[in-house]
Amino acid sequence: MTMESIDINCDMGESFGNWTIGEDEIVVRQITTANVACGFHAGDPVTLMRTADLIRDAGIVAGCHPGLPDLLGFGRRAMNVSADDLYAYVAYQVGAARAVLGARGIELHHVKPHGAMFASTSASAELADAVVSAIIDTCPEPVLYTPTSIAGDTMPTIARDRGVKVVSEFYPDLSYTDDGYPRTERNKHHVDPERVVNVVRQFLDRGTVTTKTGNEIPIEADSFCLHGDSPNAGEIAIVVKKTVEELGIAMRPATAFEPPSGASENKP
Amino acid sequence: MTMESIDINCDMGESFGNWTIGEDEIVVRQITTANVACGFHAGDPVTLMRTADLIRDAGIVAGCHPGLPDLLGFGRRAMNVSADDLYAYVAYQVGAARAVLGARGIELHHVKPHGAMFASTSASAELADAVVSAIIDTCPEPVLYTPTSIAGDTMPTIARDRGVKVVSEFYPDLSYTDDGYPRTERNKHHVDPERVVNVVRQFLDRGTVTTKTGNEIPIEADSFCLHGDSPNAGEIAIVVKKTVEELGIAMRPATAFEPPSGASENKP
Amino acid sequence: MTMESIDINCDMGESFGNWTIGEDEIVVRQITTANVACGFHAGDPVTLMRTADLIRDAGIVAGCHPGLPDLLGFGRRAMNVSADDLYAYVAYQVGAARAVLGARGIELHHVKPHGAMFASTSASAELADAVVSAIIDTCPEPVLYTPTSIAGDTMPTIARDRGVKVVSEFYPDLSYTDDGYPRTERNKHHVDPERVVNVVRQFLDRGTVTTKTGNEIPIEADSFCLHGDSPNAGEIAIVVKKTVEELGIAMRPATAFEPPSGASENKP
Amino acid sequence: MTMESIDINCDMGESFGNWTIGEDEIVVRQITTANVACGFHAGDPVTLMRTADLIRDAGIVAGCHPGLPDLLGFGRRAMNVSADDLYAYVAYQVGAARAVLGARGIELHHVKPHGAMFASTSASAELADAVVSAIIDTCPEPVLYTPTSIAGDTMPTIARDRGVKVVSEFYPDLSYTDDGYPRTERNKHHVDPERVVNVVRQFLDRGTVTTKTGNEIPIEADSFCLHGDSPNAGEIAIVVKKTVEELGIAMRPATAFEPPSGASENKP
Repeated sequence: MTMESIDINCDMGESFGNWTIGEDEIVVRQITTANVACGFHAGDPVTLMRTADLIRDAGIVAGCHPGLPDLLGFGRRAMNVSADDLYAYVAYQVGAARAVLGARGIELHHVKPHGAMFASTSASAELADAVVSAIIDTCPEPVLYTPTSIAGDTMPTIARDRGVKVVSEFYPDLSYTDDGYPRTERNKHHVDPERVVNVVRQFLDRGTVTTKTGNEIPIEADSFCLHGDSPNAGEIAIVVKKTVEELGIAMRPATAFEPPSGASENKP
Repeated sequence: MTMESIDINCDMGESFGNWTIGEDEIVVRQITTANVACGFHAGDPVTLMRTADLIRDAGIVAGCHPGLPDLLGFGRRAMNVSADDLYAYVAYQVGAARAVLGARGIELHHVKPHGAMFASTSASAELADAVVSAIIDTCPEPVLYTPTSIAGDTMPTIARDRGVKVVSEFYPDLSYTDDGYPRTERNKHHVDPERVVNVVRQFLDRGTVTTKTGNEIPIEADSFCLHGDSPNAGEIAIVVKKTVEELGIAMRPATAFEPPSGASENKP
Repeated sequence: MTMESIDINCDMGESFGNWTIGEDEIVVRQITTANVACGFHAGDPVTLMRTADLIRDAGIVAGCHPGLPDLLGFGRRAMNVSADDLYAYVAYQVGAARAVLGARGIELHHVKPHGAMFASTSASAELADAVVSAIIDTCPEPVLYTPTSIAGDTMPTIARDRGVKVVSEFYPDLSYTDDGYPRTERNKHHVDPERVVNVVRQFLDRGTVTTKTGNEIPIEADSFCLHGDSPNAGEIAIVVKKTVEELGIAMRPATAFEPPSGASENKP
Repeated sequence: MTMESIDINCDMGESFGNWTIGEDEIVVRQITTANVACGFHAGDPVTLMRTADLIRDAGIVAGCHPGLPDLLGFGRRAMNVSADDLYAYVAYQVGAARAVLGARGIELHHVKPHGAMFASTSASAELADAVVSAIIDTCPEPVLYTPTSIAGDTMPTIARDRGVKVVSEFYPDLSYTDDGYPRTERNKHHVDPERVVNVVRQFLDRGTVTTKTGNEIPIEADSFCLHGDSPNAGEIAIVVKKTVEELGIAMRPATAFEPPSGASENKP
């Protein structure tokens, strides 16, 4: 199996005030889709505005990357939030991102929960449902970006059941378990470009990934997810794009989909 | 001169996490228009959601009440922010409020800058213009709530020039200077209901206010602004509503206006 | 068994900026020991300073009440913090409280971890040890206030082993399990003074508490802990003090103890 | 005039959570004195702890670098704070830094107000006095680091009058006005090492600086202040140390001074 086209997304706008993370100016020109941080785990209104400018100039698609309210932990620490909390956190951040992007002529494309917010939805159908409801209630067209495993995950299943388009992600810079899950433990380490190229090539050629234990397992995904906070994020984005181009595969956002039904009753 | 109708607005949703301010459940039933705090000077996503529920149940109009990022100072301390900062702060907060209100079926009606954010626009045309641009770029229909003085103020003038509907506010619980400015120094004091009733009556009967120095001066305003953080905010709202009704004047949001022109070029 | 003296402690200074919680002015005159919030879950530098003034004027003993960095959740939501995080959070807050109290002539007496910070130490010896290390490294004399159960708890055991004085708390306004644990679920509800009086009387008369299931079990405690954020916190403090006085039991801080040994090697 | 010894200080610990600023590991080995950020404009408890480890390992002197509560503006935006606010902000931060440093065996040496906090004290004797009071009330020995001009500044004068040791700073990487003031506008720009070497050499040789307009004016200073947030902060620190050593001038903290008198009455 060879794919005809692939989406490449990357988290962006994760700087905060005077502090800079990432190489967004480089990365934005290699990808099809950006996920913008919204101020809870990273980002702030001014950073968001500058990121919107970058995205507009690059002409790519943009979604919202909401996180838990934990700047000190970069949204990566589990917090015991309620479903009501989570719904409100997502709705608030989607709205903020949508407005700032909209002020630059960019329509919000999707929502991709960050770090511990995403992780919380794996263990709890109630929390997953809260996130999905918030997406339905605040997005122009409800689209969820998320990793999906062979076994299927709580939130993607709920999202599909409620008419939300799910875009499956594949993480070329993470290790995978035999169950098809990306291993989330990662650091701000330099990423090996050669390894990433091989992983990307294998996925695009054979639709598989080789797991930590050496097994080659099938993976389905609509989008590569790159990490914008690696010290060599720009280099990685460049080699991924180059690899995709060499294989003659088109880079295209994962946007063509049927209009959702079953939207939440609170939708205005 | 007797007015035919009056709008009554009040700041709401100024609680924060576990901390409560105001008597929103009472106030919301006495007024026509709410201004919801957005998390920078007060409010938070969950409070915003609860406030949206109150507003929906009361069936009143709702706008956004953005402030400077200063929770410790309740947004009442001057901060030396740039025009870019201010634009981003307003756009972000309008978006967050618009999404949460929208999730409850409420369309965002207007923007009313809070405290030191408003004050900053009086002294600087550049800052006033930044706020007006953000309103134009993020509101369904750009409407600005603001006090206006006899002499005219920087922001209202810029707003009108750029096609933004300006709703003038009158503050029945504040003292006025001979120039027609409300005196912003106030505390969390108990407000005297009898005094407020007299001020409201005089304004509605004669279109005037008696200033701190004893002069009766004309005031033009489309809306009464009540303060939601007084300890007897509910009582004050009740007596204002009663006074308006006794005078046979209709309570009506200040909504009928011509569509704006001259919107900022970045408007999507 | 009748006790000769009892300590009564209460959390104080849990207001934040413009938001007020509690009736500290009343409570401070009924108790022997205050635990001051330090700005992570509640409180802020100005509130801390005002609280120090109240404590100095009342002439009571004061400790530090550190929490997790979660203002929105009032420090009551579990967060997945590391031992290094926890050590740093406690050391920072103890230092801030110690300096502000010291500026008013009050020596820091003890540390009492708040809400989810305390709860995190029950499940993890590593986290409990981090808190105990921070106390040893930053307090004039290391004293830990904490509830203790019949079965014994992780943190009190570690603290005693490392030479830290442990003051056991009893919560007259909480329900107890048959294991002798206070049930932490509580709200900002009005507390029933009559029930509290009966619980206090039974504890002082017989050294027992009647659990949720109706069993009367023995409880050992050196200090009553009252909650300062109840709407009738002042009333409760008044009736507790009155009950203690009627029983002829002295109110006295739990301060007389042997100097600690085994302090952490980093102690200056 | 040739100086016998010079102190070299640098702000450190200005990273925040996941965001890194500066090259503290390099800088700490070139200087005599560190000023640690305390969490209001930069830094956080964990960063503070790590910075204390670096300082202990390098065996240098450490002071506290408090700022205004404005993370988004890095404490560089003027805020209209009251004297009570400022006192509390300084006391709180001094205490937090003192405790964390103390936990690593380092005694707090001095206080150096950051950015807009420092600037606020130039214009207001009341604010300057509040900062000085907080220093007196919370430091083991009250020492203030600050730039001083020919004309003399508000805060240094008040500090000396109240018995606080004042250490005058000279900024080799800033331009100076003819009045002897450093120009505070600066960015995160690369600093020219050759220019810095010349400025350092001229100061140490002749006790002068050449101003923006080309005048050579006398400057008195006890300490060089380097900026830790330049992208080449490490390189600059290395060349400054090398220049000082080449001139045969000792690097020594500005610590030998008479014990202060006139300490504030609230001092414990």
